[in-house]
Amino acid sequence: MAVNLPAPDPAQLSPVRGVELGVARAGIRKPDRRDLVVIRVAAGTAVAGVFTRNLFCAAPVVLARAHMRKRVRGLVVNTGNANAGTGRDGLKRARLVCAAAARGLGCQANQVLPFSTGVIMEPLPVERIVSGLPAALQDLRPDNWAAAAEGIMTTDTVPKAVSRRVNLSTGTATVTGIAKGSGMIRPDMATMLGFVATDAKVALPMLQRMTRQAAEVSFNAITVDGDTSTNDAFLCLATGKGPVARSGKDLDLLRTAITEVAQTLAQAIVRDGEGATKFVTVRVEGGRNAAECRKIAYAIAHSPLVKTAFFAGDPNLGRILAAIGNAGVPGLDTAKVDLYIDAVRVARGGGRDPDYREEAGVAAMRKPEFAVRVLLRRGRAAAKVWTCDLSYDYVKINADYRS
Amino acid sequence: MAVNLPAPDPAQLSPVRGVELGVARAGIRKPDRRDLVVIRVAAGTAVAGVFTRNLFCAAPVVLARAHMRKRVRGLVVNTGNANAGTGRDGLKRARLVCAAAARGLGCQANQVLPFSTGVIMEPLPVERIVSGLPAALQDLRPDNWAAAAEGIMTTDTVPKAVSRRVNLSTGTATVTGIAKGSGMIRPDMATMLGFVATDAKVALPMLQRMTRQAAEVSFNAITVDGDTSTNDAFLCLATGKGPVARSGKDLDLLRTAITEVAQTLAQAIVRDGEGATKFVTVRVEGGRNAAECRKIAYAIAHSPLVKTAFFAGDPNLGRILAAIGNAGVPGLDTAKVDLYIDAVRVARGGGRDPDYREEAGVAAMRKPEFAVRVLLRRGRAAAKVWTCDLSYDYVKINADYRS
Repeated sequence: MAVNLPAPDPAQLSPVRGVELGVARAGIRKPDRRDLVVIRVAAGTAVAGVFTRNLFCAAPVVLARAHMRKRVRGLVVNTGNANAGTGRDGLKRARLVCAAAARGLGCQANQVLPFSTGVIMEPLPVERIVSGLPAALQDLRPDNWAAAAEGIMTTDTVPKAVSRRVNLSTGTATVTGIAKGSGMIRPDMATMLGFVATDAKVALPMLQRMTRQAAEVSFNAITVDGDTSTNDAFLCLATGKGPVARSGKDLDLLRTAITEVAQTLAQAIVRDGEGATKFVTVRVEGGRNAAECRKIAYAIAHSPLVKTAFFAGDPNLGRILAAIGNAGVPGLDTAKVDLYIDAVRVARGGGRDPDYREEAGVAAMRKPEFAVRVLLRRGRAAAKVWTCDLSYDYVKINADYRS
Repeated sequence: MAVNLPAPDPAQLSPVRGVELGVARAGIRKPDRRDLVVIRVAAGTAVAGVFTRNLFCAAPVVLARAHMRKRVRGLVVNTGNANAGTGRDGLKRARLVCAAAARGLGCQANQVLPFSTGVIMEPLPVERIVSGLPAALQDLRPDNWAAAAEGIMTTDTVPKAVSRRVNLSTGTATVTGIAKGSGMIRPDMATMLGFVATDAKVALPMLQRMTRQAAEVSFNAITVDGDTSTNDAFLCLATGKGPVARSGKDLDLLRTAITEVAQTLAQAIVRDGEGATKFVTVRVEGGRNAAECRKIAYAIAHSPLVKTAFFAGDPNLGRILAAIGNAGVPGLDTAKVDLYIDAVRVARGGGRDPDYREEAGVAAMRKPEFAVRVLLRRGRAAAKVWTCDLSYDYVKINADYRS
């Protein structure tokens, strides 16, 4: 059902100097599927990250946050079990996994970042993961990104991976990333993970800033069902085995490459959203600040009524206007609001455009991809979010999942 | 599909002295259905109201708010067209309807409150409404509440009406109300209306306070899909033709009766929610204040993942914990949170209760009505909201509606 999302071509995924990936079938939840990934990074790799703000954050998130302060040498990622809502016992189990991976990688346990997604509130099967580790370690190689993208999937229907090459003044840097996620939140099969690596050498504070900026316009600008999960994480690794990025221009180039990789991965998550049949860009312009534009964009992208109208391909404009009116932007003058579906202006000055013909709206919304554009006419700020529709299959997937 | 919601028995609906209701078939959107209601109230009736906070509020809401300042003599309510998103022309049309109704009622146009629900962004068919008014005026009688409840329905499957009799120290007062609504928001077939009348004599500022208090724990404590429509209104009319409510005790009795009527009507809207198969009470206790309890209750009641789990009758607890963690309550200690489905404790101290057996959770959630109870253990405040599940039929109703 994914919307315009082909599986990545392994030949198009560039290895990143200083990064090796190994994948194994550990039988964590289902037999005979890739469910365990180890990522080994070179000594000196800078690691930046953005994590879920959900207060019920999972044990691996707690540990990964803490271990990031150390000299990180590896990541261990399992699917099938989220180790979330598991309290102290969950932390103990995540530590056991880090220790086992560290033995294989020849480092300390607190130099390994753990990531778990899958079923929530069930004990992490440490034995299976530990038994699977030798195979994953043996499999470590630089050109293993496609297999790793598959190995972190939960209910994703398509693996998500992309590469960019960027010519810095000091040489060509590579940026390659993988992600998983099929709803913004899967506390059940939780949830969204993104890993982006580059061989560029960049100072950690700068990398952390780039990561936050990239997250803001990628993983933090998408929504499938409006929730934030217990396990969300986006990590950016810079091994420093390639060219140095220090000048303003090189930093800009690298930032752009990282942002583009993050955006492509984030959009892939929406395209593969639970039950998605439409990929919709919501752009709000002319706001006083970006925050109010985002507020309105999310009010539209979260409204179940708007999303069912997307599913129906029905330009049910009142639903979009009502969502704008509900966004909680103080002092918004609705009589100035214009609304477009792609190039079709459907509302002008807060009401139906007299020239609007419903056939034009229907034609625009029948396509698998289209944009909703809102003009507020009260400032110069703008914001964009990506979302999908709400279909029968969303309900089916989420109502039937555990049975 | 409504959950435990029988149609009201007309014999159980007590007339309210000073209130007459008339209903007509005006063919506003569909032929041969009750779609126009006139309510005539005695001179001196106190009128209090609570209206939508949606910035795109509809023309009739704008006028009703303004006309409430006058000595109200009548209400005119049409279904089939919401007169929302219609700009100045919409105001003009609503005024024409008030003027026509005023001629029939023998009062000024600004003594008539207009209410419209139905399709949005289409011109109000004034001629049909005006042509239908004589029949509605001729039909005016005190025992016409059941027909009026039917006459204000849009896609409701069951009319909603209820009466209470309350013994004040000064005599017996009657409180009778009707409501319509089948999703919290129907910007398309917009939306929720509630009219409650009493023959008690009560000062306007007191009535306004009672109305706000009643709304807070009734119409403002329900959610089907989390939106607020362009046309929501809840009106409370006190004709003063019955006993006086002035003492503290009488005012308490009257407030309780009005609140109970409003709660029954509000719950009826959820029971008749779009595609609803479950009626769920979400109660959050032990908060620092009511606001944070409501925030958490709504985070649970709005989460599409929680609602699909309700539909499946699947005690998918992680989804509820994740919603709590996402509610945005600062400093909430998740390690203190307990969670119950009816009497079954499913989580304790922020994690799965070791004594919890899934069969018990499944048994509780398979029932058409159950309660989700959250204990925060950080204060003494509590809040309650009512909601329904998210089913295939919700998507079907909202994706297919206009076709």
